Amino acid sequence: MSYREIAGAVCAPKGFGAGSVYAGIRKAEHDDLTLIVSKSPCIAAGVTTTNQVHAWCVAHNRERLRVGGIQGIICNAGNANACNGERGKLDDLALGELGCRVAGSIVGQKIKRVLTASTGTIGKHLEIERVTEAAKNLENRVGFTSQHGIDVSKAIMTTDLVAKHLAVELESQSCRLGIIAKGSGMIAPNMATMLGFITSDVRVEDQQHLQRMLSEIVKRTFNRVTVDGDTSTNDMVLLLANGESGVTLDSCAVEFESALEHLCRSMAKAIARDGEGATKLLTIRLINPPEGAEKIARTVGESPLVKTACFGNDPNWGRILAATGRAGVPIDQNALRISLAGTVVFDRGEPTKYDPDAVSEAMKATELLIELEFPKIGSQEVKPIDFWSCDLSYDYVKINADYGT
Amino acid sequence: MSYREIAGAVCAPKGFGAGSVYAGIRKAEHDDLTLIVSKSPCIAAGVTTTNQVHAWCVAHNRERLRVGGIQGIICNAGNANACNGERGKLDDLALGELGCRVAGSIVGQKIKRVLTASTGTIGKHLEIERVTEAAKNLENRVGFTSQHGIDVSKAIMTTDLVAKHLAVELESQSCRLGIIAKGSGMIAPNMATMLGFITSDVRVEDQQHLQRMLSEIVKRTFNRVTVDGDTSTNDMVLLLANGESGVTLDSCAVEFESALEHLCRSMAKAIARDGEGATKLLTIRLINPPEGAEKIARTVGESPLVKTACFGNDPNWGRILAATGRAGVPIDQNALRISLAGTVVFDRGEPTKYDPDAVSEAMKATELLIELEFPKIGSQEVKPIDFWSCDLSYDYVKINADYGT
Repeated sequence: MSYREIAGAVCAPKGFGAGSVYAGIRKAEHDDLTLIVSKSPCIAAGVTTTNQVHAWCVAHNRERLRVGGIQGIICNAGNANACNGERGKLDDLALGELGCRVAGSIVGQKIKRVLTASTGTIGKHLEIERVTEAAKNLENRVGFTSQHGIDVSKAIMTTDLVAKHLAVELESQSCRLGIIAKGSGMIAPNMATMLGFITSDVRVEDQQHLQRMLSEIVKRTFNRVTVDGDTSTNDMVLLLANGESGVTLDSCAVEFESALEHLCRSMAKAIARDGEGATKLLTIRLINPPEGAEKIARTVGESPLVKTACFGNDPNWGRILAATGRAGVPIDQNALRISLAGTVVFDRGEPTKYDPDAVSEAMKATELLIELEFPKIGSQEVKPIDFWSCDLSYDYVKINADYGT
Repeated sequence: MSYREIAGAVCAPKGFGAGSVYAGIRKAEHDDLTLIVSKSPCIAAGVTTTNQVHAWCVAHNRERLRVGGIQGIICNAGNANACNGERGKLDDLALGELGCRVAGSIVGQKIKRVLTASTGTIGKHLEIERVTEAAKNLENRVGFTSQHGIDVSKAIMTTDLVAKHLAVELESQSCRLGIIAKGSGMIAPNMATMLGFITSDVRVEDQQHLQRMLSEIVKRTFNRVTVDGDTSTNDMVLLLANGESGVTLDSCAVEFESALEHLCRSMAKAIARDGEGATKLLTIRLINPPEGAEKIARTVGESPLVKTACFGNDPNWGRILAATGRAGVPIDQNALRISLAGTVVFDRGEPTKYDPDAVSEAMKATELLIELEFPKIGSQEVKPIDFWSCDLSYDYVKINADYGT
């Protein structure tokens, strides 16, 4: 391993502070307005939702990332500030300006640009007066300690049950990365109601290098997780690099990439595991995946029948096979092998003689591995693909039947 | 209207008999083996699942339909006879032969070919000995009355709560059509665990004519219904026309087509309404649908977040808009209007000032209309598209968490 895990989340890298306050955007009285700030301007990269219907923060951040000179992220939870007309646009601009003012006051510089992020109900106006009022206290809440970095991971949560954060330091050089993330519902590949904020003190010479690296890693991590197939209007993964370690990206690119992938994969799995109402993490592993096989994993991972069977510890592999068959990728069921929790249950066209009670028992664990093994094509070794999902429980229905009202 | 509804389901058309018996294929002791028989050979048409992984009955029926000379349908409920290797293949052939023997004995002729259909759990072997044993009693159970036609609609049910059947007679000529159908889970466009058996006494000169008509109608009816997006391995709509009315299809093609569409649309809606755990029928209506808009209706109708909101009577239209945006069809949210139960809730980029309590109250009905109105393109009138789904309730999870075990 070329990195080791450390404490501090987004405040682990040098020069990053964070803090949060309760602004009254959500009903439940816990912090809902978060600021991450860097002592010096950052090179930033970002990946945003592919949903055509997207929030104002997504539209504005795309522009802000293009212009550059970013020094922080301001995020509110409880309101998506999306699909709410021109006023929503102005509210996002106001949120961004507020972020600049508070961040500037903290670091004693004029700050031109911070990124914005909103998560919560769609179609409601942000009560920007409350945000403005709360922002007055935000400055005093921001600090540069490990605890501050960890605490803000709670303030960006919506229906998440578990705070999600991580930080690592490279082995070879004193360069760090930290992340906080949220997920829970409307989670599907292509950036679904999912926020991931990453900080690093690496020095980036070329923004395009950082952007390419992030985009590729997101494809293999956050875009391989699904809770319900619903891609949100607000999803973003943002990465700020302030250069304060003095370590250049060029000098540690391979290590940095592997550390960044570790952060993103860990958060992606944590999001699936903490899916709304989930009782277990499903890993759908494709062995010898044929061309386009990711669609199969996604179809299996999104199938309500597969997900409810997993909730019920029911080794109903027929549903997995049926989902595989309708994914739109050519397959040969007579060359396919399916394993559930390590037991082969279907082998090249035929059910095996497995003990359903034993498999059902093994399915009760909080992590369930579903393996689809395709025949090897040629002698070339193809890396397995992992895709993460969760089961579908009564609580998913409960949480989502009355979220908005 | 060029047809009127009559009693008798699949036995309403002249020369069709039906009956069922309990063979012990399913645990619950109600009939699970059904035979539909025609006194004379039929011209038959069929539409089968698009799932690459399909049951033996699907594979064999494709061949049987190609060869022709069909005189009945034999169907078992409780076991899909799919994905279970070579033995499954032989079992389906045995089921077909059994059908020929019983049907032949009833009509006093040698019968060469009947279609087979299986529905139930995937990956289990059919206990063909039980079927063979039960078939001995099946002959005595088959009759040619209205009641027989209606009764068999119960024997093909799996988790369906309501038996689904209908029959009509053309106004202008003495020609009839009848249908029985089942649905419930694994229901998605492209023929998903859905069986529809249609009989008619129309005389068909050209099988291709009948096949084209059925294929087109299925696209607009059964393929526009979804319960959970899971396309089954066993779906089929089969149509047998025995010519006993003496009325030729050519002499009543327009009327016949409209009657057939009525049967199929009624059954499609009945299937959505009776979706596993459903408390209400959702109709997703696209007004001025742009090219490819059916994908939008499907995405909205399959969205777990939309479906749970409907279950909770929560006017959370943001989820409808988000699903619309991720369907992969170009749209302009600033030209879109969304109505819930008749109330416009989102109008060209902005939420309207609606009363959420009143809309929530209206959503409590057992039929909920979701309208998506797109801007008119040119002066050409485009017909609205209706798509049917149902809400997602606790009971869906309950039913599917322990179906197989």
